[in-house]
Amino acid sequence: MSDEPVKYVLPESDIPTHWVNLMPDLPGDPSPPLNPGTGEPAGPDDLTPIFPMGLIQQEVATDPEVEIPDEVRDVYKRWRPSPLFRARRLERALDTPAHIYYKYEGGSPAGSHKPNSAVPQAYENKKAGVRRLATETGAGQWGSALALACSLFDLDCVVYMVGASYDQKPYRRSMMETWGATVYRSPSDTTDAGKSQSSHPTGSLGIAISEAVEVAAKDPDTNYSLGSVLNHVCLHQTVIGQEAMAQMGMAGEEPDVVVGCVGGGSNFAGLSFPFIRRVLRGEAKTRFLAAEPAACPTLTRGAYRYDFGDTVGMTPLLPMYTLGHDFVPPPVHAGGLRYHGDAPMLCGLVKAGLIEARAYAQNPAFEAAVNFARNEGIVPGPEPAHAIRAAVDEALAAREAGEERVVLIGLSGHGHFDMSAYDDYLAGRLEDIEFSEADMEAALARLPEAPAIA
Amino acid sequence: MSDEPVKYVLPESDIPTHWVNLMPDLPGDPSPPLNPGTGEPAGPDDLTPIFPMGLIQQEVATDPEVEIPDEVRDVYKRWRPSPLFRARRLERALDTPAHIYYKYEGGSPAGSHKPNSAVPQAYENKKAGVRRLATETGAGQWGSALALACSLFDLDCVVYMVGASYDQKPYRRSMMETWGATVYRSPSDTTDAGKSQSSHPTGSLGIAISEAVEVAAKDPDTNYSLGSVLNHVCLHQTVIGQEAMAQMGMAGEEPDVVVGCVGGGSNFAGLSFPFIRRVLRGEAKTRFLAAEPAACPTLTRGAYRYDFGDTVGMTPLLPMYTLGHDFVPPPVHAGGLRYHGDAPMLCGLVKAGLIEARAYAQNPAFEAAVNFARNEGIVPGPEPAHAIRAAVDEALAAREAGEERVVLIGLSGHGHFDMSAYDDYLAGRLEDIEFSEADMEAALARLPEAPAIA
Repeated sequence: MSDEPVKYVLPESDIPTHWVNLMPDLPGDPSPPLNPGTGEPAGPDDLTPIFPMGLIQQEVATDPEVEIPDEVRDVYKRWRPSPLFRARRLERALDTPAHIYYKYEGGSPAGSHKPNSAVPQAYENKKAGVRRLATETGAGQWGSALALACSLFDLDCVVYMVGASYDQKPYRRSMMETWGATVYRSPSDTTDAGKSQSSHPTGSLGIAISEAVEVAAKDPDTNYSLGSVLNHVCLHQTVIGQEAMAQMGMAGEEPDVVVGCVGGGSNFAGLSFPFIRRVLRGEAKTRFLAAEPAACPTLTRGAYRYDFGDTVGMTPLLPMYTLGHDFVPPPVHAGGLRYHGDAPMLCGLVKAGLIEARAYAQNPAFEAAVNFARNEGIVPGPEPAHAIRAAVDEALAAREAGEERVVLIGLSGHGHFDMSAYDDYLAGRLEDIEFSEADMEAALARLPEAPAIA
Repeated sequence: MSDEPVKYVLPESDIPTHWVNLMPDLPGDPSPPLNPGTGEPAGPDDLTPIFPMGLIQQEVATDPEVEIPDEVRDVYKRWRPSPLFRARRLERALDTPAHIYYKYEGGSPAGSHKPNSAVPQAYENKKAGVRRLATETGAGQWGSALALACSLFDLDCVVYMVGASYDQKPYRRSMMETWGATVYRSPSDTTDAGKSQSSHPTGSLGIAISEAVEVAAKDPDTNYSLGSVLNHVCLHQTVIGQEAMAQMGMAGEEPDVVVGCVGGGSNFAGLSFPFIRRVLRGEAKTRFLAAEPAACPTLTRGAYRYDFGDTVGMTPLLPMYTLGHDFVPPPVHAGGLRYHGDAPMLCGLVKAGLIEARAYAQNPAFEAAVNFARNEGIVPGPEPAHAIRAAVDEALAAREAGEERVVLIGLSGHGHFDMSAYDDYLAGRLEDIEFSEADMEAALARLPEAPAIA
């Protein structure tokens, strides 16, 4: 075989034993979530109606590491450690001196990074005696992951799927049903929240969250499960970055820039937080680049304010970049990125200047994704297509500058259920939908009363 | 972690260096393919118009092993060695003393075992200076694999996709197009063969083969590429069985029965031939079980006769179990199993009693596949669903008999592009389409003149 390795594989024993909790490393005191009724800091008691104590403890953990339960690692073993690839063919196609690596999470049964958090969430709920989980899903990645995890831990599962994606990606629904979940198109008529939003038939993640939270709040046997944004979800995903760090070591390189897509932020956090810890501790100099859709540009255009996590206003107020909790993003194919806010931890790091953000329209993202597929084989999901676009731009900039630059991409999932987007792109039908500043301004004007973020 | 391993992973260095050629081990002299014009044994010269010499040499090879070119192993490294899993959760769900293992080929970028042969075929054609490959595809697994391989070796690719699958699985077409291939619905109006079969709008693999062979025969820059049946295709797939044998060794077990699905036979051959060699050499006692669809039951109901590989009658006559080259199988979801014949090497082993064959209807196959998905996570393709059904029956028989039985399944691919079949199954809409003995008898009456198989 040639001397050019393209894949770096860790042994099963190198599946991380702990998750990385970045909280104690963050500069300054983090702004707390606020109770939506009182405006006071929300504590564990605010969360017990819909979350089990095991997850609440992880949500507020202050230790730098949190041990991964054996039962969770046992399930991780089915697809972890995930491979790291060197994109040698893409490098040659771009004629760049940059070295491009990608950490691929599409090998999980659900096809993305999402099971990394769905499994510990199902585990902790099962342990707490919960019978059923309710959740939202955009493109279907998170809903699939939770359906899978519930199947493995013998829990019932109900999923509110954003209308636009339900129509674009019907086979994600089939997959969830195959694993035994019940799936509703959101906004639905099964909840008060859904009925109140029937004038937005394409739906949004914010609306779907409201529906799932309502179901969990009303039924004592049902808990809610969130696929991104919250601290414990970001925490669970850090297995990605820890493995990637070990694999970059196998390759004998350090990333100069770590690139990922951001919807709610869990994928980006999972890859980057272990690397960001090293930067915060003065052990490395690394750039971090968050790629988001131009149609829903929270990090590049949003306001840094307290806002609800959901559209109807049932969740605690979170400190984050937001386009307004009732902003309904245009129905771009990257359904997993259609969220009005972002993980507070991630937003704080953007605010602090540790993470750069860039927004990309659909056509340039899919152009990069097709180029990637034809050179590297794997067909990326529409979400990581945005990260690939950003990485390609980095590689082209490195060529301009004549410098070797090491780029690490988070390839969060495959596009097997998103081929209608590729159809549209290849046929020239894909729209670069405009972000509406006016819609955002109107939504921001409806933000709840809250103090400025410290 | 628990002491119950569920996954067995080989290092990259254990990707086989050679393919297993079972030809010299077969009992008796193999019956040769015949020239369709003269009825004389077909030699290499009959194949040069549509195949490169490198593949023809593999087709007629008599050495027990054939070296894998470095350039092919370099591509295999992207997803090989593939994992072997122990189906511990499925075993518990079935309450069986049987030990069930599955070798999973769905981790390739095309989602099945097919790239194992597409890559060496593209490589040999590229080396021979060919510019374009033409092929057929049923459910789209083979067409995807060849589109991928052509993309990696910078060849053009044209795919004739069986009409029934083209309609059922539109996103397989999108995937092939994403990799740069041109895809036609078969029967098409782009070939004489297609025009002659326009009265069979659902198409068949036999018709699609006729179209692709015609294109290759007429254009000197285009070669034909077949995804199953021929010796060299079965040869390429033996990386599966060699790896599985090493992995069963890691698990400290010997399979009592090896189970796979059979369409043209390459998946089954790939897993079983290395194990069959040991049986033929008196080194092991293993049962081999071929699972096929009841709607297209070549091995269980076909005639053991010389017949064309394609519908129109352009290929050499092959000694095989056949339902007649112009038999059009009902449009079952397992599109990859809708073929009127089977690999001659495999048929010879069935005839000799070394391989048992069983036919399964769609509903029992999908019942087993859903049970598998809910316990093991992976959603199987409709084709290996038949193998899972057969393996579940073996496990239930072992329970009845109170015996430990080690079952090894070839899980040839995932079902991400076949979710409409799961939709139909879960909604109770899936038909157990009857095989038409009358249609087969009529087709057999139209078999070409040829001697009996020796």
